[in-house]
Amino acid sequence: MKFPAALDELTEYLKQLPGVGRRGAERMALAILEWDSGQLRDFGTALASLPETVGTCPQCGAVAAKGQLCDICSDPKRDVSQLCVVETMSQLFAVEKGNYFRGRYLVLGGRISPLDGEDGSNLRIDLLRERAALPETREVILALSSDVEGRATAAFLAELLAGLPVKLSRPALGLPAGANLSYADGATIAAAFSNRMDMK
Amino acid sequence: MKFPAALDELTEYLKQLPGVGRRGAERMALAILEWDSGQLRDFGTALASLPETVGTCPQCGAVAAKGQLCDICSDPKRDVSQLCVVETMSQLFAVEKGNYFRGRYLVLGGRISPLDGEDGSNLRIDLLRERAALPETREVILALSSDVEGRATAAFLAELLAGLPVKLSRPALGLPAGANLSYADGATIAAAFSNRMDMK
Repeated sequence: MKFPAALDELTEYLKQLPGVGRRGAERMALAILEWDSGQLRDFGTALASLPETVGTCPQCGAVAAKGQLCDICSDPKRDVSQLCVVETMSQLFAVEKGNYFRGRYLVLGGRISPLDGEDGSNLRIDLLRERAALPETREVILALSSDVEGRATAAFLAELLAGLPVKLSRPALGLPAGANLSYADGATIAAAFSNRMDMK
Repeated sequence: MKFPAALDELTEYLKQLPGVGRRGAERMALAILEWDSGQLRDFGTALASLPETVGTCPQCGAVAAKGQLCDICSDPKRDVSQLCVVETMSQLFAVEKGNYFRGRYLVLGGRISPLDGEDGSNLRIDLLRERAALPETREVILALSSDVEGRATAAFLAELLAGLPVKLSRPALGLPAGANLSYADGATIAAAFSNRMDMK
């Protein structure tokens, strides 16, 4: 039994979503078949009109309604003196989930990774330099991934911003909250011990 | 940080897909943002045009190109004497995966479940009666779920077809292939023992 061509096409698109394999895409396609035509049309329109409705914030590169500042850059209560540099929108959401950081962001759009052909020209490095040079910016937190490319990108950015009168920092390395030492990897344990905190 | 309204709307649709929660839908929406506009338009069109391109086979209720017989009903090599009744398309695919059954299908479209308000009026029961009454149909295999509603529906259908000169059967109950007795539930073990097979 083969899917009709139109359903096959739909399955191909669904398969490109993160975390969706062939089986999952087929299951989704069969479920979508049960939707009524109004719902399908609206879903289809929501997808097709995305390039016209959603863009990136000109100040930070986060998702925003087309041509507008994002939710955070347009919030006067956010602290303009702190700028947190992340690679992707998902990292931005992760930091927001921490509910601690109240400054603003700069979404780089990836990291420098010569092996994947990313030399940095597609990243928002110029925008970062511009934002970091603003007189209100006091601290730049480089919250990039702590893997090889992330650390290399952070080192590159640190050098780039070294001449500016801003403080550079990065999130602490250590044991995750609620972690059991038995299951932590060696690099994490080494970082947690070398950065150990005084108990007062 | 809130999603722009258009992205929120997209997330709502993605959340309705089987196996997708809020987090997964947000992750998918962010990934979809990276697609180029041509791809988004084609995906959108594939969805919106589904009601015009995909329908159900008039002979069996399986998915098929609009107005056409499905792949199986139009295959002259399938055995017309056997009719396998399943609840859903996914069950049909599951039976096909077994690579054993070479007859044709009847996709009921659900099962009788008074608690969920399904009294059978939305199911293809008339079509089943019609197909079962055809002179070429020799055997009807009721391959419904073996839970309460599935068994009740199978019993109802068996009664409905009792007057017709067709053999009625259902798939065997027993241990799944490769199963370990230690992990089988009591009902499965009881079925496997009461239907035990002679070793020749």
